[in-house]
Amino acid sequence: MKIRVYFEDTDIGGIVYHSKYINFCERARSEVLFSNGLTPFDKESNSGYIVKDLSCQYINMATLGDILEIKSKIVSKSRVSFVLEQTIYKENSKIFSMEITLVYLKNSKPAKLDERFLELFYE
Amino acid sequence: MKIRVYFEDTDIGGIVYHSKYINFCERARSEVLFSNGLTPFDKESNSGYIVKDLSCQYINMATLGDILEIKSKIVSKSRVSFVLEQTIYKENSKIFSMEITLVYLKNSKPAKLDERFLELFYE
Amino acid sequence: MKIRVYFEDTDIGGIVYHSKYINFCERARSEVLFSNGLTPFDKESNSGYIVKDLSCQYINMATLGDILEIKSKIVSKSRVSFVLEQTIYKENSKIFSMEITLVYLKNSKPAKLDERFLELFYE
Amino acid sequence: MKIRVYFEDTDIGGIVYHSKYINFCERARSEVLFSNGLTPFDKESNSGYIVKDLSCQYINMATLGDILEIKSKIVSKSRVSFVLEQTIYKENSKIFSMEITLVYLKNSKPAKLDERFLELFYE
Repeated sequence: MKIRVYFEDTDIGGIVYHSKYINFCERARSEVLFSNGLTPFDKESNSGYIVKDLSCQYINMATLGDILEIKSKIVSKSRVSFVLEQTIYKENSKIFSMEITLVYLKNSKPAKLDERFLELFYE
Repeated sequence: MKIRVYFEDTDIGGIVYHSKYINFCERARSEVLFSNGLTPFDKESNSGYIVKDLSCQYINMATLGDILEIKSKIVSKSRVSFVLEQTIYKENSKIFSMEITLVYLKNSKPAKLDERFLELFYE
Repeated sequence: MKIRVYFEDTDIGGIVYHSKYINFCERARSEVLFSNGLTPFDKESNSGYIVKDLSCQYINMATLGDILEIKSKIVSKSRVSFVLEQTIYKENSKIFSMEITLVYLKNSKPAKLDERFLELFYE
Repeated sequence: MKIRVYFEDTDIGGIVYHSKYINFCERARSEVLFSNGLTPFDKESNSGYIVKDLSCQYINMATLGDILEIKSKIVSKSRVSFVLEQTIYKENSKIFSMEITLVYLKNSKPAKLDERFLELFYE
């Protein structure tokens, strides 16, 4: 998935605000689902994925007008959660990487992961 | 209500991103309600205020670290909606003004405004 | 320009947060420039476009996963500023429209508009 | 530092969007500086603090209207960087914790940390 950096993503330091990279990764995760007819959140069944923890490294900076590419793959999974590794590239150079643990909740309780969902993130 | 300008509010131009002033005004409206035991959105009764239109003037700029003051008053009202004038000041000088029309919805339909709500915004 | 609605764009009401539509329009304006080798802000010459005023109507709602289309055209212009009309469509139905006045600043002073810029927004 | 959760901070899931907690922590760090006459970013000397890495745990959720309290303390430091532990509480219960490494940059190069800055975050 490719994302353009706009004004709203930058801050007075002239670079992308640090938490925005985490939003970009969420967009990439969600886009994988949307483009496959799935959704990260379903209001009727009150189910969706929530973040349990995340850890990220800032390697280089992005700025206004940059086009960033985001790659996502699953590194491990349990019955109700999985760990995703997401990496952001700028002109083929890695600028940001994140490991994020997501838990699937149904009516606020952990529930069995949807296999279709996981397949989308396997290489 | 006073609001500090943080990194997330600024953009690469070194000033507050234009739509952020509109967020600041929403915070100010909501804070008036919260601090009086009311809420701008009630999940159980599925009711809340939505924006119908708004119009704003950008008079001067704010930047990182500035403390802004927001004043809100009702300029007109009907049975289901009202027009609020919100002004942002920086060191007693007006930098932004907005007129916004809000409609009260209950289960997605316009409903009679709560009088307690309106009283809070009268001078 | 097409924009997908992600989690970050929605609020607890289940719809797109009102000021986010204004961000979407900024993305659309900027994308027209970027994709033509221009930029809405140049750090070296300290020049760019700032918002003088805007006025918008909220016609219908968008929510998570929606794909929105944004159209932009100039409605009037002076030597240093211009008025742009931007409209957001969801499945060919208009859900938001905005008139926005932008002023071109060079070293914080109004400066003559770049004709190449204006041509991009004429139909 | 206390922060109120507003509409813009929530998402369609009815809770605070995950990266917003990281913004709240940035506000808290910056506020410590602002309220002591310092700044996290100085345009003239082109110096400021950038994020090198961060790691966070989501323990419980916050929602619209909640008042959150943020505590920050230094856990380690080197000549040019330091690690800050930031914790968010809701009604005295911990809902989020983060460890973040910040590097002090002057003209894009790591520079010696300001001792006054560090003192503000020691308990």
